[in-house]
Amino acid sequence: MTSTMTDTRVLPSYVLGDWWDPQTGTPTRDASTGEVLALVGSDGIDLAGAVDFARTVGQHSLGELTFHQRALLLKSLAVALTAAKDDLYAVSGRTGATPRDSLVDVDGGIGVLFTYSSKGRRELPNTRTRIVDGPAENLSKDGSFGGQHVYERIPGVAVQVNAFNFPVWGMLEKFAPAFLAGVPTIVKPATPTALLTEAAVRVMVDSGLLPAGSLQLVCGGARDLLDLLDVRDHVAFTGSASTAQSLAVHSNVIRRGLTITCETDSLNAAILGPDVTPDAPEFAAFVASVVTEMTSKAGQKCTSIRRVIVPRGVADEVVAAIGDRIEARTVVGDPRAEGVTMGPLASSEQRDEVRRSVERLVSGGGRIVLGGLDDPQVRHDDGTTGPAPDGAFLAPVLLRFDDAEAHAVHEIEAFGPVASLIAYDTVAEAVHLANRGGGSLVATVCSYDAETVSALVDGIAPFHGRILVLDRDDARSSTGHGSPVPHLVHGGPGRAGGSEELGGIRAVKHHMRRLALQGTPNVLTGLTGEWRTGADTATGEHPFRRPLSRLRLGDSVQSEERVITLDDIAHFAEFTGDTFYAHTDEEAAAANPFFPGRVAHGYLLLSWAAGLFVDPAPGPVLANYGLENLRFVTPVSPGDLVKVRLTAKRITPRETDDYGEVSWDALLTNQRDEVVATYDVLTLVAKE
Amino acid sequence: MTSTMTDTRVLPSYVLGDWWDPQTGTPTRDASTGEVLALVGSDGIDLAGAVDFARTVGQHSLGELTFHQRALLLKSLAVALTAAKDDLYAVSGRTGATPRDSLVDVDGGIGVLFTYSSKGRRELPNTRTRIVDGPAENLSKDGSFGGQHVYERIPGVAVQVNAFNFPVWGMLEKFAPAFLAGVPTIVKPATPTALLTEAAVRVMVDSGLLPAGSLQLVCGGARDLLDLLDVRDHVAFTGSASTAQSLAVHSNVIRRGLTITCETDSLNAAILGPDVTPDAPEFAAFVASVVTEMTSKAGQKCTSIRRVIVPRGVADEVVAAIGDRIEARTVVGDPRAEGVTMGPLASSEQRDEVRRSVERLVSGGGRIVLGGLDDPQVRHDDGTTGPAPDGAFLAPVLLRFDDAEAHAVHEIEAFGPVASLIAYDTVAEAVHLANRGGGSLVATVCSYDAETVSALVDGIAPFHGRILVLDRDDARSSTGHGSPVPHLVHGGPGRAGGSEELGGIRAVKHHMRRLALQGTPNVLTGLTGEWRTGADTATGEHPFRRPLSRLRLGDSVQSEERVITLDDIAHFAEFTGDTFYAHTDEEAAAANPFFPGRVAHGYLLLSWAAGLFVDPAPGPVLANYGLENLRFVTPVSPGDLVKVRLTAKRITPRETDDYGEVSWDALLTNQRDEVVATYDVLTLVAKE
Repeated sequence: MTSTMTDTRVLPSYVLGDWWDPQTGTPTRDASTGEVLALVGSDGIDLAGAVDFARTVGQHSLGELTFHQRALLLKSLAVALTAAKDDLYAVSGRTGATPRDSLVDVDGGIGVLFTYSSKGRRELPNTRTRIVDGPAENLSKDGSFGGQHVYERIPGVAVQVNAFNFPVWGMLEKFAPAFLAGVPTIVKPATPTALLTEAAVRVMVDSGLLPAGSLQLVCGGARDLLDLLDVRDHVAFTGSASTAQSLAVHSNVIRRGLTITCETDSLNAAILGPDVTPDAPEFAAFVASVVTEMTSKAGQKCTSIRRVIVPRGVADEVVAAIGDRIEARTVVGDPRAEGVTMGPLASSEQRDEVRRSVERLVSGGGRIVLGGLDDPQVRHDDGTTGPAPDGAFLAPVLLRFDDAEAHAVHEIEAFGPVASLIAYDTVAEAVHLANRGGGSLVATVCSYDAETVSALVDGIAPFHGRILVLDRDDARSSTGHGSPVPHLVHGGPGRAGGSEELGGIRAVKHHMRRLALQGTPNVLTGLTGEWRTGADTATGEHPFRRPLSRLRLGDSVQSEERVITLDDIAHFAEFTGDTFYAHTDEEAAAANPFFPGRVAHGYLLLSWAAGLFVDPAPGPVLANYGLENLRFVTPVSPGDLVKVRLTAKRITPRETDDYGEVSWDALLTNQRDEVVATYDVLTLVAKE
Repeated sequence: MTSTMTDTRVLPSYVLGDWWDPQTGTPTRDASTGEVLALVGSDGIDLAGAVDFARTVGQHSLGELTFHQRALLLKSLAVALTAAKDDLYAVSGRTGATPRDSLVDVDGGIGVLFTYSSKGRRELPNTRTRIVDGPAENLSKDGSFGGQHVYERIPGVAVQVNAFNFPVWGMLEKFAPAFLAGVPTIVKPATPTALLTEAAVRVMVDSGLLPAGSLQLVCGGARDLLDLLDVRDHVAFTGSASTAQSLAVHSNVIRRGLTITCETDSLNAAILGPDVTPDAPEFAAFVASVVTEMTSKAGQKCTSIRRVIVPRGVADEVVAAIGDRIEARTVVGDPRAEGVTMGPLASSEQRDEVRRSVERLVSGGGRIVLGGLDDPQVRHDDGTTGPAPDGAFLAPVLLRFDDAEAHAVHEIEAFGPVASLIAYDTVAEAVHLANRGGGSLVATVCSYDAETVSALVDGIAPFHGRILVLDRDDARSSTGHGSPVPHLVHGGPGRAGGSEELGGIRAVKHHMRRLALQGTPNVLTGLTGEWRTGADTATGEHPFRRPLSRLRLGDSVQSEERVITLDDIAHFAEFTGDTFYAHTDEEAAAANPFFPGRVAHGYLLLSWAAGLFVDPAPGPVLANYGLENLRFVTPVSPGDLVKVRLTAKRITPRETDDYGEVSWDALLTNQRDEVVATYDVLTLVAKE
């Protein structure tokens, strides 16, 4: 239904660095009142230009920034969005979201930006487009040839095709990792809620923070977009399994190397353990979680609980308890009305679709045991209660299947406030039923018995992207079954789409490609920004006298030798209290399979090494804040000499401080040049 | 061409734990003489039974073993195959492989088993089906709820569909990581060289080492196999891009969550840097590499150099040098004849296909500048030279394209001893030309100039799976352009298939699925086998007195407190030589942004902590072999008290020693219970 209504706003897109106004579009309506809010369309938009703009201007402007600089911009964007929250909540309410739903969508999305900003600075180097992956691999006898895996950002555009249910979070959870990776984004929101995405994008654009070409918005249809993409690009899709399947067979995916990830709704299960009796705290926590998932966002979440799997003996009690809780807590109505806890679905089309799905579930063997499909009485904006013929309302519905193996309950998803309950007799049966979903985003396992938890988790793990173990100890602190958190992966095998989003830096790497570099230590040092064994070193001025502005990879100091005596070892044992027999008892030490006799303490060697390489006077090195990868290789006996070589290995200036991290390769050797110990010393060093 | 020849061997398959003999098949021939060697067919084989056998018996038997136990079996299988090498080489020779080619295939495959055996024991825990991925994520204020990513093995079968060119390596490079992950394999070799795969599988079966159902072999066609697979399973395909595309759109991939990885041949480039003059060592190394890649395996390698990209000024010299080297070094003939350096192609069909591809390259603008398409004179088994009408021989062919942008040179792959040369004027142009391959497995960058290397690698990195930087310092030690090594990923974006194989433990994880577990510290400890902060601890007997047989996660010791005085700090400074001002100069220390004044050395704290938690007498703890993740959090001033808690965090018994590794969580706190330092202490502990 495309129409032109001169008095209705036509939702603009943001492409090629500017707002673009279409002439026509499809009406999008207030979910509670049916009022037309805007027209959404993309006829005539320059999609090819937008893709090219991202690949050229966007790649260039993001590539000029480091990971840390991009991370700081994410934080500033989060601050700008936070300042605009009231406006966003107002628009969100018109899509049917209650304030609590908006919290998940708007604040949840902003939270993703904050998390990626923080993780980006803590967990990524301050380089531009390349991240080192895993340890160096030596591939030659003489050390002159080796390999190193790295991640390199993809050279194209990240296109996100979003679902209607989380217009802000859905955009930001994909945007943040792409942006951090240095990859420009084109957002394609779902039409019913595109006006909220547009509002959020407008805040981001108006902030003036976005590097040129780093974010574009295409409201309305964008079917041809895939035709323009190839091996350089990435598509992240959230939505129905059937649309995902049609994208996956697109010839640019199959023939031109376009990568695509899909996150599709799935028939997520919540399993109540056989150990949980109705009076146990787990029982109440389980029921509360089921009701939350049925009613939050009116059940329009791809992570909602769709299948409630309970021991046969307590099935009736579970149904009753769910009913009681819905009765006591759930008020359906216009989200703008006081006290409403569940809003309408996003559109009347969506409500009709859910009704049809429930009817199919009933034909497939389900009985409606709570709620129903009739138009519910709802609370209006003005506080009155009554029917709302123009709103997309539906009451929560619980079905029960007497046959737990019924095809319908494991196949048909009603994407609304709808769940189905099935009963099991054995843990193995519960596992089998959960896995019949064919791959799900998330499952809850509710039990306080460690063996039950193990059996259930072991059985369902390969079919799930996330498993939440709910019990009395985390019922209050849990982030909830239905809430993906930016720290953990979101996605699942099979029906759930077979992909991953989020998961901290993992999602940044989904916008990069892993490759193996092979070459000499010097070449690998140059390409990775990490000094490695065998590469050139430079001695002269003590590197601890060099601030970051003058410090270079390979800057090195080789210490003098120092002899270690039996007296030193005995003294250290006494001073520290570390009287382990290998240091104090010749006979016992010699009987140990790893020591020739009494040997120096490892911590003595570390301490002396520090004494050998230290430069005592105040200088740019501010602190030794830690140590990594320490391995003691060769024991040191009385009479042995030790010396240490320290080499600048990794240099990470901070963006917001006048210092940065420097990691030093430490190599401790003896008088025979055998390796005594290797480790990395972590220091803070001033920029000037 | 299916026939029955009663006097010809029909190649058996190995399914459901037994050898299975088909009645008919397609003839496979000696590549040099055309003699029929065997019939290859699979009519009537029970594929559904084989899949079910893998998913049940294979999953069970492999799941009973730990990662280390499976790793040790890989080593034993490698030893068994090594003992049978002479037989395997003999069969390999009949496929057209020279002894040097067989070294790559047979010894290379065995080397993969050894590498995975070693890496499995060094880099994986000694658990069964789950690996921890990344650090724990705390998700609650009080620490009662957190997340942990893990990898879980897939619950089905790994099906490998292999190319004809590496019948042993191609099987083993896929088998080793699947086996290590605990996933059973079904091997589907390519018909022309299936007899060599069968010979290798027979050695493995006869060794008696294979757990039931862990390896099955289906010789001949197996088109229906994909119809039997779903979200539980994984397909790894090596072969042509067109076949890969047909697999990628199979409905079980699109609809039922079957995962598939593809490794397809690509138009790999070798780029000679503009800095390399004909008298430079890099020039000779480059030419040698091109000739090796053209002639090894008669150019039938998906990693071979297909596009030789050189500065315009030296193009003629490069052609001449390649010609000279082929002339001087290459003897085409029956691999069994003395002195032969290049054998026939795998079959006459394959040779005809290569000829057609060369003709298409010529039509597309290429000129043949070395070699030709006529039947070459070849050296026979008996030492004579002459034509070999029944062998699949072809001479090396170099083409030259005057138009470097010609479509054909970037699109048409002649899968034989064929390469094409194009010239460039600028580094940017060289990058552009290399990337026109649309995604490649590997590229060589040959230059001794660091800036050139950076510019070329930065430009081509997102389009390649592996980049080898060749120069005078690694020309001798390099493992070579065309040789994937088990340590590094093998695969590439776009045309190369868009997937990864090998790469050490990364490939084991390709046979597992990542998921996020959420729960309390106790639940996560139980599910991951790693104690985490907040989980229960058990005190009592000092845990250093407990051998592995009695040690449990969470076994803990809390030390006494010890006061640190200024004298202690001064003494430690003097004894160790670590007179850094933060420990020796009150005024200078106070001026440091991180210290309140003089503070204790970090190494003093570590040493005293050891003194506080040590149990001196001989016991099960044999050695402290290292330390990880040390962070100094709060400085310790004179007068502060420190204490340490040590808790068993990870326990890894070794399979072949009477001890194992135990990692201990160390928590150093002060008199205000502030965290002073955290780290992991690594020890070796006896089993009894």
